[in-house]
Amino acid sequence: MPISGKVFIATSLDGFIAREDHSIDWLMNQPEDPEDRSFHEFMETVDGLVMGSNSFRTVLGFKQWIYNKPVVVLSKSLSKADIPDWITGDVEISNLDVESLVSSLEARGWSSVYIDGGAVIQSFLKAGYIEEITITKIPVLIGSGIPLFGEIESDIQLELISSKSTGAGFVQTKYKVVGE
Amino acid sequence: MPISGKVFIATSLDGFIAREDHSIDWLMNQPEDPEDRSFHEFMETVDGLVMGSNSFRTVLGFKQWIYNKPVVVLSKSLSKADIPDWITGDVEISNLDVESLVSSLEARGWSSVYIDGGAVIQSFLKAGYIEEITITKIPVLIGSGIPLFGEIESDIQLELISSKSTGAGFVQTKYKVVGE
Repeated sequence: MPISGKVFIATSLDGFIAREDHSIDWLMNQPEDPEDRSFHEFMETVDGLVMGSNSFRTVLGFKQWIYNKPVVVLSKSLSKADIPDWITGDVEISNLDVESLVSSLEARGWSSVYIDGGAVIQSFLKAGYIEEITITKIPVLIGSGIPLFGEIESDIQLELISSKSTGAGFVQTKYKVVGE
Repeated sequence: MPISGKVFIATSLDGFIAREDHSIDWLMNQPEDPEDRSFHEFMETVDGLVMGSNSFRTVLGFKQWIYNKPVVVLSKSLSKADIPDWITGDVEISNLDVESLVSSLEARGWSSVYIDGGAVIQSFLKAGYIEEITITKIPVLIGSGIPLFGEIESDIQLELISSKSTGAGFVQTKYKVVGE
């Protein structure tokens, strides 16, 4: 059974996951929906996370550690010393390529992985490891930034699984990746 | 009462309205939803259309003329001679800038205008004339193309009016532009 990559991410209406300087002020400014359990429900479906170093820096900036599953940070520049003491048991740094990382996670018994961060999502998508994408669309245009999606070799068809809107005016859509 | 610009457009999941060569094969390939009356209902709410020359060329390629309201094509290169005979009564070419065009449409008594095409939508949005945006999100990634949205000077906040999904897996969301 090959590993299943899952994306759960918020974007601006114009499709950015962060500004060019990686800031997500436009997202943090938005009203929260205390009723929304979708992130917690999603976390229950994965064995762990793989994210890029920029996403890691962003979540380090939050007031609390939001993950209850192991996190692998893909980075060629970060080392063990860059992981704050209070999360050393939860985070490891890896500089493997996508294929080798997937083999290593499969060897650990992971079957479902939360893939986070623009570049990491795009490389897992290109390699065919993304099975499910949940996008929470925030009703704001920011004009420029880091796009969720990037160039691809050929069209990728998806299938809508569900769509709902929240009280704050966010639209959350879940897709299954059908393929090229 | 200033004119109200309305957008009603389909994009790929990665936010493009057409490929770089303006083709919309990825959209025409999708299953149609014969039950979907939303385009006709939308057309009832506008006095006419303003579109760019690329959008005009695209709709000329359809088997039939799909608009029952007057169309203004914004172009500095097209002339009356480029309008096929069978629609000369429905279409005019204009090379006015946004402000002058808006004044001229207001003078005609138009209060609500369907704004179509990437560059035209972006310039009307920048000038503050877009009040409502309906996006039908098609579940396909095309990787590159002409984006619906472009660079802006500052964030633009929107408000979700409604969201629905169709049988074909399209997600149609309607927003009100709140402003900067």
